[in-house]
This record gives sequence, structure tokens and C-alpha cells, in this order.
Amino acid sequence: MAEPSGGPVGSYPFVKGHGTENDFVLLPDHDGIVHGDLSAERVRRLCDRRAGIGGDGVLRVIRSRHVDATQADQAEWFMDYRNADGGASEMCGNGIRVFALHLVREGLVDPAQPIPIGTRDGVKTVTIAGQRITVDLGVPQVLGETSVSLGDRTWPATHVDMGNPHAVAFLDDSADLASLSAPGRDLDPPQHDAAVYPAGVNVELVARVGEHHVAMRVHERGVGETRSCGTGAGAVCVATAVADGRSAGQEATYAVDVPGGRLTLTWTADDHVLLAGPAEIVARGTTHL
Amino acid sequence: MAEPSGGPVGSYPFVKGHGTENDFVLLPDHDGIVHGDLSAERVRRLCDRRAGIGGDGVLRVIRSRHVDATQADQAEWFMDYRNADGGASEMCGNGIRVFALHLVREGLVDPAQPIPIGTRDGVKTVTIAGQRITVDLGVPQVLGETSVSLGDRTWPATHVDMGNPHAVAFLDDSADLASLSAPGRDLDPPQHDAAVYPAGVNVELVARVGEHHVAMRVHERGVGETRSCGTGAGAVCVATAVADGRSAGQEATYAVDVPGGRLTLTWTADDHVLLAGPAEIVARGTTHL
Repeated sequence: MAEPSGGPVGSYPFVKGHGTENDFVLLPDHDGIVHGDLSAERVRRLCDRRAGIGGDGVLRVIRSRHVDATQADQAEWFMDYRNADGGASEMCGNGIRVFALHLVREGLVDPAQPIPIGTRDGVKTVTIAGQRITVDLGVPQVLGETSVSLGDRTWPATHVDMGNPHAVAFLDDSADLASLSAPGRDLDPPQHDAAVYPAGVNVELVARVGEHHVAMRVHERGVGETRSCGTGAGAVCVATAVADGRSAGQEATYAVDVPGGRLTLTWTADDHVLLAGPAEIVARGTTHL
Repeated sequence: MAEPSGGPVGSYPFVKGHGTENDFVLLPDHDGIVHGDLSAERVRRLCDRRAGIGGDGVLRVIRSRHVDATQADQAEWFMDYRNADGGASEMCGNGIRVFALHLVREGLVDPAQPIPIGTRDGVKTVTIAGQRITVDLGVPQVLGETSVSLGDRTWPATHVDMGNPHAVAFLDDSADLASLSAPGRDLDPPQHDAAVYPAGVNVELVARVGEHHVAMRVHERGVGETRSCGTGAGAVCVATAVADGRSAGQEATYAVDVPGGRLTLTWTADDHVLLAGPAEIVARGTTHL
């Protein structure tokens, strides 16, 4: 069926991958001619976990010059990221790690060099060392204390901005993490201070597991509980380091366990947050969706 | 990585499809040499909705003679069905409709003729007419009255056996269906009489929408709420026809709305239940999972 938008007729290629179970449908469209204006409806169809392929979002693989000429000198490739609800979105820390792995697997970039990737939040740099894929999430902002509630429980929380807003709350005990919802159920939406977060907030509930080692669950605004959230893990690293008395210019590294796996977060001496962890490509093929 | 079971090395083909959003990973393995003993662990990996391809189950496409020689004379193809938890299972009404569509798309059967398909519950027959794919679910058994509860509500229910056990309860009002769980949440597990259903039960909660037209939600034992259940829709047809005073030998047809679409169920004059509805193949490709 032909589409008014000039989208694809018949079938087109896709790739499925994930980083700590944050999963994505990748659409190779190097010169922007396969998908034209990628419609929100197509994104929703692809991300549908029953009637489609399923994913937390779509990552269109396209050359920067077709999207944002100002980035083309710095980054050949652009991650055109869409949320599962169809909306364009700035950045996704796990998504860009999967995206970089795909570029390497396809021979489109040199894995021995830092890989610049264009996004709607500017050019990001990914590095690959063995199974570990690292992205620089940029400079965080620690914006003070607030609180969050879930059911009849309330915790103090640290307000961290990672380009998007986070509230990080520490539980007393790691056993508490499982008790935050009925077995097998996702977290209910936590309550937050709307004066602090007028556009909503991502809430991280954190328990200490050991030295420089924490575990978290995350409720993403507009989405619900997810298996992993890269910027959320970054916010947790920052809030934990603040709680641990990190002084400015001091490097701090934490293992952060998310339901979908383990991430390693480093708050560097020059104030950047690095997100490191595994990524995997699980399938490739064609679809007509 | 080589596998002890003699399973595939490297990548192998898959197909993804669904019937009213009951979705499956199909594994073409016509002569049983791709997957050897298909391990429960591989099935779970494939069905994982974040780290895998995602599905309610796996349908291995294999010739009957490699599985059950007694069926090979009647049905060239066998649906080797595994639940998402990795266990082998007898039959799946929506799965076999997707399976038949795949055989047709691959040119392996003649769509103008009834298509016999081997299963662990014996040979089933599928017919295709345009977008409608119909499978004969066999002869139901109506086994009397019981009751089911959800939270603080209890309803009388009809015990119907469709090869697997069902409890069908009628709500007072179709608006009640949405009220059975918080918005966007799945049904909690209903309570049933363990003396009636020692091995558990699939529970269908049903509301009348119009003449010969009902809507249902289903909680499948060991799975939770699903978007569709073929045998569940069959049980609903039977229980509704009984409630409507069907006499033996009288044909009764109902439109049954499930969360994933609309099915049409017929209890035939010769006491068989026919399940009819759409099926779709959405993707094909390769995976190494």
C-alpha cells in the first residue's frame, strides 16, 4: 500500500537490539529515502509488543547531513530517536550504545576510534572496548532536595538534571526494592512535587548493595517502570556520589544494577557522566509494518 | 557458540506473527536439523520481550514424520508449540491460524484446500477464506457450574473443557470489563475452586455487547492476562450459547471481542467449535538467540 508521506512500499529492513533490556527497533535508512517522514503511527506499529516487533523506541540510522547539517562535520551518523509513543526525543543513553554497536557490526565506523553520533541533544561520543560500550552523557546538574512518595511511603530525594529531570530516593535496605510492588508487577507511578517538576520526572528508587555498588528501579515519566534507563543510572551515580561526599574534581565510579542488567557509571574529574555497559543485536530482517 | 544439544551454530531464520495479538515466533525447521532438541532455554530467550524477539510462544515448523509418524499420513506439517516458559504444549487456537498462514505464504500448502496440521492434541484442520482463517477446535464439554472471584467480587461461572479447562463468568455490564483492573494494568489472578480445577484454570470474564456479540477478558493459567485466547473464546461461545438456551444440534455463532481484536466462534450442529479470525505475519529474518 502506498503511503501519502512517501514512506516505504512493501517490506523494508529492520534490526532489533537492546542495552540492559532497554530495547529498540533500528531502521537503516542511510540516505533518508526509505522512510521519508517517519510517521508516529509507523513508530507505534513497530514498537507494539504484540502486533508489531516490539521496543521501547525506534532508532533510525541516517546520515547527519540529511537531518542537521550543523552536525554533519562532526558526526557522519545521526540517531533519529523516537519514543514508542511515536514522538521524537532527544537522547537515550542505552539506545545510543545499541546504535553504535550496529554501526560497528555493519562496518560503517571504526570501533578502535571514538564514535561521534549526532542526536537532537547534540553530538555524543561512544567508545567501544570489548563487550563494554560507553557513552558520555555530559555534565549533570545537582539541583537540591525534594521528596517522592509511593503508596503510603515517602522518601527524601535528590533532584538531578541529566538533560532530563530525575528524583533519586534511597531506600533503607536492598530487600525493599522488591517490596515496592506486588511480585511480578511494575511500580505504580510515584508521586512528586509538581512545583519542582512541572513537566514530570523520572523517579529512581535506590538501595545500596556494597561499596560503590547500588541497585535501582526506575519509573520513567510517560512510560512506567522500565528494565533500564541510562540517564536514570547516571542520576543515581551522581546522587550517590553526592551522598558519599564526593568533592568537585574527584572521580567516582559505581556499579548500578538495573532490572535488565548491570551498568557502570563514572562521574569524571572534569564533571562528565559516562554510562558503560553491554549492548546486543538480537535479530535482523524485513517487515512491512 | 556450539551447544551441547546439537542446536544451531550462528544465526538461523525466524518469522514473527500474531492472531488478534496472540503473538508467536515461528522457527522454520522443516526436517528437524536446525534446532535438534529445541531447548526450553532457547524458547525462553526467543520469547523474552526485552532481550529477545518476544512472543507468547514458539511454533516450530517441522514435517510430522520427524515428530509423530502416526500423524504423517494425515498431515505433512506439524506445529511443535512451546509456551513462552519453554514447556511443550498441546494446542493453541490462534497459534495454529498463524502457522497455517505461514505455510500458505511459503507455498508449502494449497490455500484453496483444508489444511491438516499435526499437533500434540492430534491433527487439526484449518481453512482459509480471504482474511479469515478458521480452525476446528473440536468438541467441547460443558461440565456444570462453579464460581470465580476477583478481589471482593464473586460471580457464578460455567465450567467448559476445550481440551483445556475454562471458567466463564458473565458480568452485569460491558462497562464492568474495564473496571476489573486499574487503567492500563492487567487482571490480577482470579480465584477458583481448586477442587473443580486441581491443575488450575483459564478464567474468562464476559460482558454482552449485543445480540450474538460478547466482549471478554481472559486470565490464562501460568501466564496472566493475555490479549487473546482461542480456546478461551471457544469456551465463551459455548457458555453463552448454553445461557441462550441452545438445544443440541443447533448451530450458534457469536462475535467475541478480545482486547487484541475480534474473533468469530461457531458451535456447529455436529458439536464442533470453530474459531475464525485474522492472522498476520509481521516480520521475518535471522537471529542467533
